[in-house]
Amino acid sequence: MCLGDFERTAAAALPADIWDFIAGGSGTETTLDANRAALDRVLVTPRVLRDVSRVSTEARLLGRPAALPLAVAPVAYQRLAHPEGELATARAAKTAGVPFTASTLSSVAIEEITEVGGTVWFQLYWLRDTAATLNLVRRAEDAGVSAIVLTVDVPWLGRRLRDVRSRFALPGHVRAANVEAGTAAHERPADASAVAVHTGRMFSPALNWSSVAALRERTALPLVLKGVLAPQDALRAAESGVDAVVVSNHGGRQLDGAVPSIDALPDVVRAVGGGCEVLFDSGVRSGTDILRALALGAGGVLVGRPLLWGLATAGEAGAARVLELLAGELRDALGLSGCDGVAAAARLRTVRGPGAREPFPGG
Amino acid sequence: MCLGDFERTAAAALPADIWDFIAGGSGTETTLDANRAALDRVLVTPRVLRDVSRVSTEARLLGRPAALPLAVAPVAYQRLAHPEGELATARAAKTAGVPFTASTLSSVAIEEITEVGGTVWFQLYWLRDTAATLNLVRRAEDAGVSAIVLTVDVPWLGRRLRDVRSRFALPGHVRAANVEAGTAAHERPADASAVAVHTGRMFSPALNWSSVAALRERTALPLVLKGVLAPQDALRAAESGVDAVVVSNHGGRQLDGAVPSIDALPDVVRAVGGGCEVLFDSGVRSGTDILRALALGAGGVLVGRPLLWGLATAGEAGAARVLELLAGELRDALGLSGCDGVAAAARLRTVRGPGAREPFPGG
Amino acid sequence: MCLGDFERTAAAALPADIWDFIAGGSGTETTLDANRAALDRVLVTPRVLRDVSRVSTEARLLGRPAALPLAVAPVAYQRLAHPEGELATARAAKTAGVPFTASTLSSVAIEEITEVGGTVWFQLYWLRDTAATLNLVRRAEDAGVSAIVLTVDVPWLGRRLRDVRSRFALPGHVRAANVEAGTAAHERPADASAVAVHTGRMFSPALNWSSVAALRERTALPLVLKGVLAPQDALRAAESGVDAVVVSNHGGRQLDGAVPSIDALPDVVRAVGGGCEVLFDSGVRSGTDILRALALGAGGVLVGRPLLWGLATAGEAGAARVLELLAGELRDALGLSGCDGVAAAARLRTVRGPGAREPFPGG
Amino acid sequence: MCLGDFERTAAAALPADIWDFIAGGSGTETTLDANRAALDRVLVTPRVLRDVSRVSTEARLLGRPAALPLAVAPVAYQRLAHPEGELATARAAKTAGVPFTASTLSSVAIEEITEVGGTVWFQLYWLRDTAATLNLVRRAEDAGVSAIVLTVDVPWLGRRLRDVRSRFALPGHVRAANVEAGTAAHERPADASAVAVHTGRMFSPALNWSSVAALRERTALPLVLKGVLAPQDALRAAESGVDAVVVSNHGGRQLDGAVPSIDALPDVVRAVGGGCEVLFDSGVRSGTDILRALALGAGGVLVGRPLLWGLATAGEAGAARVLELLAGELRDALGLSGCDGVAAAARLRTVRGPGAREPFPGG
Repeated sequence: MCLGDFERTAAAALPADIWDFIAGGSGTETTLDANRAALDRVLVTPRVLRDVSRVSTEARLLGRPAALPLAVAPVAYQRLAHPEGELATARAAKTAGVPFTASTLSSVAIEEITEVGGTVWFQLYWLRDTAATLNLVRRAEDAGVSAIVLTVDVPWLGRRLRDVRSRFALPGHVRAANVEAGTAAHERPADASAVAVHTGRMFSPALNWSSVAALRERTALPLVLKGVLAPQDALRAAESGVDAVVVSNHGGRQLDGAVPSIDALPDVVRAVGGGCEVLFDSGVRSGTDILRALALGAGGVLVGRPLLWGLATAGEAGAARVLELLAGELRDALGLSGCDGVAAAARLRTVRGPGAREPFPGG
Repeated sequence: MCLGDFERTAAAALPADIWDFIAGGSGTETTLDANRAALDRVLVTPRVLRDVSRVSTEARLLGRPAALPLAVAPVAYQRLAHPEGELATARAAKTAGVPFTASTLSSVAIEEITEVGGTVWFQLYWLRDTAATLNLVRRAEDAGVSAIVLTVDVPWLGRRLRDVRSRFALPGHVRAANVEAGTAAHERPADASAVAVHTGRMFSPALNWSSVAALRERTALPLVLKGVLAPQDALRAAESGVDAVVVSNHGGRQLDGAVPSIDALPDVVRAVGGGCEVLFDSGVRSGTDILRALALGAGGVLVGRPLLWGLATAGEAGAARVLELLAGELRDALGLSGCDGVAAAARLRTVRGPGAREPFPGG
Repeated sequence: MCLGDFERTAAAALPADIWDFIAGGSGTETTLDANRAALDRVLVTPRVLRDVSRVSTEARLLGRPAALPLAVAPVAYQRLAHPEGELATARAAKTAGVPFTASTLSSVAIEEITEVGGTVWFQLYWLRDTAATLNLVRRAEDAGVSAIVLTVDVPWLGRRLRDVRSRFALPGHVRAANVEAGTAAHERPADASAVAVHTGRMFSPALNWSSVAALRERTALPLVLKGVLAPQDALRAAESGVDAVVVSNHGGRQLDGAVPSIDALPDVVRAVGGGCEVLFDSGVRSGTDILRALALGAGGVLVGRPLLWGLATAGEAGAARVLELLAGELRDALGLSGCDGVAAAARLRTVRGPGAREPFPGG
Repeated sequence: MCLGDFERTAAAALPADIWDFIAGGSGTETTLDANRAALDRVLVTPRVLRDVSRVSTEARLLGRPAALPLAVAPVAYQRLAHPEGELATARAAKTAGVPFTASTLSSVAIEEITEVGGTVWFQLYWLRDTAATLNLVRRAEDAGVSAIVLTVDVPWLGRRLRDVRSRFALPGHVRAANVEAGTAAHERPADASAVAVHTGRMFSPALNWSSVAALRERTALPLVLKGVLAPQDALRAAESGVDAVVVSNHGGRQLDGAVPSIDALPDVVRAVGGGCEVLFDSGVRSGTDILRALALGAGGVLVGRPLLWGLATAGEAGAARVLELLAGELRDALGLSGCDGVAAAARLRTVRGPGAREPFPGG
């Protein structure tokens, strides 16, 4: 009945180490928790006496229509949650009419994912091997993706202590289908997360603005930078020909102690001043959360973990139900705040509350 | 001895699903909880050395005298709590000398309620059938009500998850006595609240300012808009010939994530600048809470759930005791802050505390 | 080892209803708790590299020297806590070199208390019988007290729900020794606190500024108003020839929802601008708390409940130990913040922290 | 995997009274807890798209290079935690390439500690016997230390109630190796901490700015003042020829109610304006905490208790692992916030969050 229900069923359904890999944050999880608390502190002042008999949740994302101001966030290795992995999630996204973002580390090859149809974006990690990186872009283009989403906040993986403690490694049947991955992500290391070891070998910590320029030249597709929190970085992105930034702290999985994404959002919106689209990610768990992000200036949101909860609970149907719930909740939140669409939501006034509360206590 | 006692006895006396229907809020109940926390944060600076040997709690509501700056809020289907339903509550209100607001969805017909005597206001939901809506107004006028309270924050019901989970439906003996209700509210749906399904079919989401204008033309009775949080909407209400607005988030039952009503109150008072009366609703549980609202500029408050607690505990006597407690507590709160009446309370200074606490811990 | 230890031993030693009478606050005890939380939020910036080999805790209170910037607060009916009652506490105060304030409702007559010696102040409740009130003042003067402390925040008692629930009444051997009390405070009422009923009959709710003027004319003793929170009231007190005000919310026992005393202190200090002394009361539990009050401009503090904890635990020796602990803790707090005396403490800088914590967790 | 792991293992490994001596704070431990909460509230805005393939954690402390912006804080009597005591910790510091600060109250003589090699600083308590004090300085110089760290916030020990309750005394084999200590620290007193009694006899509460001037004249070594929170004191230190101040509240062990060190840091940095180095101490438990201090203007941090946790858990190897963890975490925190070194960290923007959370929940 709400996304929290799927969180509980997924936690029960998945092995502990896989659950922790999906749910965990870095360090003492200060930022993971702060994301949620900061969202709960955003209180909206609804408007009344506006005809809301026709509420539309439609939005434009990267210049194209979408059924919701929402894209499925890139999440690696979705076959951890369900045998059909990304195929199931992508089908759910297609049904819901929202873009699906395929990860560089998807456990199903990008070509198979785009065969599902619907709008597919490709998330790119910049690899130490630049030729391989640009080859991935070309493969994604050939497969028919409609945008490239470059993740900019992962020079290497944050210290996700749950994974370090579980010495998390991928089970044999889950593989990085797009890249020559070797066996690093599967070999349980002594005192580390195998996934962190693997990505440490593969990702380039040298990623910088010239990489963005190179990518911008290389592809005509819309280009999105995911993981921007500083207004200066967002402004430079806009000036670099980037089409959108995603204000995100990677769901509390990178720098522990980073500012909650929602607290960083308004300054970024002000800084870019319309120079590019501003999307939001980190902690969205309800239609009200989407309304909050819209009211604070976001053009849309990315949602990650909840899709995995749906996937782990009931495969494609579960993921579809998660999106259906979000769509219904967003329609409700819009109508109950007197908005007939997402444009009206951007004009709502918000205030900050003093504290926060536990997510999803009921049930 | 305090309203919290009645909350506990009512929770024990009622079936779980009915208790949840009364007590619950929408979504993750962020706003429900925030209402209470925000009230607790309002700290009053009392005055001393003023003769308070004669403290009057009398007030004027909609131009008429009332024994307290308080009206009983409209609450639907009160026979859920007690066989006598609205009749018992209306009698208690009459005894206490305060207005009783009869809901469109009362389980006793408006004509029977006004027979009780005392001041009765009629709460109006705008129905999809406008003729039926205006017919309700005429019936209420004919029955002798002294004001029309148009609820403006319910284009449809908020997602009250407790009711969705319990698949809440009305028992057969509880019916919407004022409206041709059909059976929708009684048939347990698969995955929803029957009450939400029913009101979804009946209420008009097209309700807007022209509806207010039509209603204003139609009736000479004082007109109140209930569910206003945005200062602009309150100002427009005053300019539309409305006699009062009720600053309310529907007790946390509509938009989850809405600003606490008490935090919205001062801006509304400033915006209308005396252009109409400003009442307050959402979370009032003690005389101190009434004092807080008065100090922040409200002319009076509406109290809902506590009356149902009294009703469920001991019928009319319980509801009467709740109002008696509030009257005594308000007299105490006025006197202990050096006020001989409600006018003096409006001049008290308040500060905001940093956090909040659980309601009603003792006992 | 700290006052919290005495709180625990007293809670264990006393019957539940007497403990609750001493410990409780009014209403939902919002203000009782807020007093403590607000003190914990006051964070002091200590100074260093000042010779603190001779730290003096001496102060002047009402123009006379005292060993500490502290007086024992008036607390009624101390024989509830120990057979020797006020005599034991007054002896402890004398030993510690601090004033003892005898309550109008002391369970030992004022003449017996002043026989103990030391500095004794007399706390005055304004009675419905003005002649009796002024007679009390004369008796106190004749008995040799050195100040009159008029309580101004009790037109009647706050709703102390613990006492209402226990139907609290005085045991037969504990009597209001200074006043013709009748039996009201001893007869267990149906649904009320006997003490509240009794004081309701006895105290005058008409107490006002002209009462202060009358009292000021009547006595040449220093006059203190206890229970002032509003700066305007404090200023008027100074202009009325009052020698000191006590910033106090009566330890959270009168208006529930009143501002924490420590949060009201700085504005009062500013308002009176040296026109009279400003003392502080409500929640002082350690030498650090005294330092906090001094740093925020108080000339000294009143301490009530902790003396009763000491008294209940070990009679005079217990009360003496409580004062000894406070003296030692204050000397420590002064020295560790680079202050050689109370004057230096007034120049310390403070900041407000974001939250608060439970009192006295250790042990 | 994180310092919290060592906290747990050390708590399990040590006798309760020794654990409490290390872990405890003064009074009700308000400041001890506030230190941690205040650090968690500092939220960093990371930068992206900067080449972090070469992240250096190197820093300059007192004009000399160190592998990390970190020195081991002076902690007394380290043989309480492990038979090798300071020798083990000093070796770990040497391995990590960071300064080790030997306490006046070290349980191994300063000459033996400097034989370990690496950079050793000497922490000085000003004794009642000035000749003995200056003799300690000379001995430390002769032993080859590279700085003198004068502790300025201990005219005497704060009221550490855990030690008072346990009547904490040193076991016979742990002695103050640098000073003629007598037996005071070993004889269990009636109602006190033997260590507090002992230092009370030994330390001079007359310590003042002229002591600093005397010391400044006496030694050519870099001079550090540890325990400064007030900007005025920091400025005067810089003007007195001091090389660095350590912003510290002694880990919540001196004035209970003192401002959290991290909240005092920015004002101190502003006040000294580069006139001397500013180090930070009190509550550092992770690389993120170091990043927070750097972002707020500190040139480096001191870390104390965590080293003892490592020492108690596994001797030198444990202490070394603690430093290794901090080094790794700092490298991560720098890289993940787009900093290639400590200089870049000083330019990060921070915001303050509304609350705080429990330290180290995982595991």
